[in-house]
Amino acid sequence: MPNSRKPDTWLITNCSEILTLRGPAPRRGRALAAPGILHDGALLIREGRIAAIGPRRRVERLPESRRARKLDLHGRVVLPGFVDSHTHLIHACSRAAEYEQRISGATYEQIARAGGGIINSVRKLRASSPASLHSRALAHLAQFAGHGTTTLEAKSGYGLDWPSERKILVALRELERLQPLEIVRTFLGAHIVPPEFRGRTRGNKSADAYVDLICRQWLPRVAAENLAEFCDVFCDRGAFTVEQSRKILTAARACGLGLRLHAEQLARTGAARLAVEMHAASADHLEKLTGTDIRALARSDVTCTMLPGCCFHLGIAQYGPARRLIDAGAILALATDFNPGTSPTLSMPMILSLACTQMRMTPAEAIAAATINAAYSLRRHDRIGSLEVGKFADLAVFDVADYREIPYYFGVNYCAMTLKRGRIIYSRG
Amino acid sequence: MPNSRKPDTWLITNCSEILTLRGPAPRRGRALAAPGILHDGALLIREGRIAAIGPRRRVERLPESRRARKLDLHGRVVLPGFVDSHTHLIHACSRAAEYEQRISGATYEQIARAGGGIINSVRKLRASSPASLHSRALAHLAQFAGHGTTTLEAKSGYGLDWPSERKILVALRELERLQPLEIVRTFLGAHIVPPEFRGRTRGNKSADAYVDLICRQWLPRVAAENLAEFCDVFCDRGAFTVEQSRKILTAARACGLGLRLHAEQLARTGAARLAVEMHAASADHLEKLTGTDIRALARSDVTCTMLPGCCFHLGIAQYGPARRLIDAGAILALATDFNPGTSPTLSMPMILSLACTQMRMTPAEAIAAATINAAYSLRRHDRIGSLEVGKFADLAVFDVADYREIPYYFGVNYCAMTLKRGRIIYSRG
Repeated sequence: MPNSRKPDTWLITNCSEILTLRGPAPRRGRALAAPGILHDGALLIREGRIAAIGPRRRVERLPESRRARKLDLHGRVVLPGFVDSHTHLIHACSRAAEYEQRISGATYEQIARAGGGIINSVRKLRASSPASLHSRALAHLAQFAGHGTTTLEAKSGYGLDWPSERKILVALRELERLQPLEIVRTFLGAHIVPPEFRGRTRGNKSADAYVDLICRQWLPRVAAENLAEFCDVFCDRGAFTVEQSRKILTAARACGLGLRLHAEQLARTGAARLAVEMHAASADHLEKLTGTDIRALARSDVTCTMLPGCCFHLGIAQYGPARRLIDAGAILALATDFNPGTSPTLSMPMILSLACTQMRMTPAEAIAAATINAAYSLRRHDRIGSLEVGKFADLAVFDVADYREIPYYFGVNYCAMTLKRGRIIYSRG
Repeated sequence: MPNSRKPDTWLITNCSEILTLRGPAPRRGRALAAPGILHDGALLIREGRIAAIGPRRRVERLPESRRARKLDLHGRVVLPGFVDSHTHLIHACSRAAEYEQRISGATYEQIARAGGGIINSVRKLRASSPASLHSRALAHLAQFAGHGTTTLEAKSGYGLDWPSERKILVALRELERLQPLEIVRTFLGAHIVPPEFRGRTRGNKSADAYVDLICRQWLPRVAAENLAEFCDVFCDRGAFTVEQSRKILTAARACGLGLRLHAEQLARTGAARLAVEMHAASADHLEKLTGTDIRALARSDVTCTMLPGCCFHLGIAQYGPARRLIDAGAILALATDFNPGTSPTLSMPMILSLACTQMRMTPAEAIAAATINAAYSLRRHDRIGSLEVGKFADLAVFDVADYREIPYYFGVNYCAMTLKRGRIIYSRG
């Protein structure tokens, strides 16, 4: 068994299937359905990277393989570790009480107006100590690893004042040092307009003043302190307008940040077109896209990140148009949207099940969307997202004999082992 | 820690919530939403049964508690072990390839006509050795326990000839000796009409001849050998008619078997009314019920067993009318329908998530449906399904602080420990 402290040279062998996902990134159209399967394959790992990959007999015969430590997977399935490109990892508590209210008939927007929803998370996050946020996030990160995820994006956005937004981003930076998963940080100061800027009661400032504050003060600080790599905006009904979002994204780009956008979730506002116009790395949600939006996205390099956990949890029958986006040639990714209000799942296998059963993606398409295309949306497709020589040995091992069983056995986690840069970071039982 | 071999007296304490589900069974209407929560509670277990249950301070002060071994749950949530009242536990292999075909556009009935579907499972089961069926089922039973299930019903029905049907029922009986979960056996010879009786090609007999065979030969043998406690029939379009089903159920009752029915899944055939007429213990599926059916079921003692995993996996937006059944006063239960074709999940927490998000049941209603009412449908409500003095100590311990988080964190299994008759049969990590 490989030593978990000192990456070494070793041979992972006797895999019934290795889904390599080899080939150019990103994947569009039919290329999404080509997982590059190796049957009876093996991998040689050196210093945390893939040194060789191929048919078992060929890899085992390499001189270096004979000296390597050996890990026999007994016919299990190997794929690239999942890349979860949209999470709200850091939050102060669950919102199970609101969940029950919604089941009993309240809408998401009614709950928000009554002080629930995102504002509820903001209030609790502002009052939380960094230590309590750390310990909660560390438990969740271990669970991410236990479901096969090796890289995740994580957003601020439950702070909405500078000290709290900074608290989240600093916590994310520290968490990356404390545990093995790679965390890609995104600044989402423009998640919703905080109560202090709703301009309804005397003395409150306007939403535009909040946008100005983000553009003039917070974004330069985010960049100066290297707190985040991306900037995201929730551009939707009840959040930020297309104009406000354009202003924020323009300022973010000027600060050197990559761009992401929550787009067309609650209403069709034109946010997807803004993502295309601004060359955003990713436009996420997209449940309310029009045909014109789909064509525009398909011609662009914007990754369309579908978050079906959100529709599932809210009991919305209208999932995003994944099939139409794929058929139009768009770049499709899948993510959990892990957050306490609308998608409290961190299981990428569950997201694959939703993608397959509810959005009619094939298991192969769903896996490509959750690995190589998600890596592309995070601008890491040169290092992760597929199993090719030179890339990091980020692997998820599943205790199935056929990769299609990963989404098929819905609600049950078959992840048996997870490796990050060649180190075992999770192993079941 | 309690010894897993010799049941002893011991105290389970420091539970943030114990869902006792106390009170008369079955639960109808509003009673379904009353989980009988004890906050900061404790349980005293003696010889596998509950000897005391109540507020921690009171139970800890009992003389017997002081001598008992102590299990501190550190604020976790305790509920009765799940009772999964509808499974097809024994099957020879997964049907992930058909899953992919269906995603790509084939309907369930098209796949069946092409030799897939149940017939595919039948062909593979007939060719399987008892040893291979045992080892597959044992792995699944361990997973059931790992998701909080302590009792399950399991059906034959992939044999469809006497040696194969018997092989399944004998295997189930042996499995009960080999592992701790209680398995309630159901004979489902009338799952579909086997190919040999489809009367289309020369020499084949008719479906009615198959019904006769079941009634005259197989059911008496099932009873004589004590192979099953219940008889089930798939009464639906493409399976057995109401008339054929009535004949089988009448014969089954004459042999002393309890009655169950697959009813109104693919089409509304009158199967639910038949269940009422025959005083069946349970009518299962029920997606296509009419208003009249709902009223008839609500006036009866038939348990309405909803199987939302099936709708989810088949991507059918129309879930069963759970809300209307509850409001009408019917007895509602939830089960996984674990089977390789239409519901390959054995996770009762996943079923709770589906019940809450897709059928608008509250977490409390879903848990009552998955415990005390399911126990009622198996005629075991005097022994299991709630945590009351004298009942078996069948417990599921969840690593959450609020029971509503069990369905809320969908797709992630928070079961930390499972006890069957006072013995720990699963403990995480």
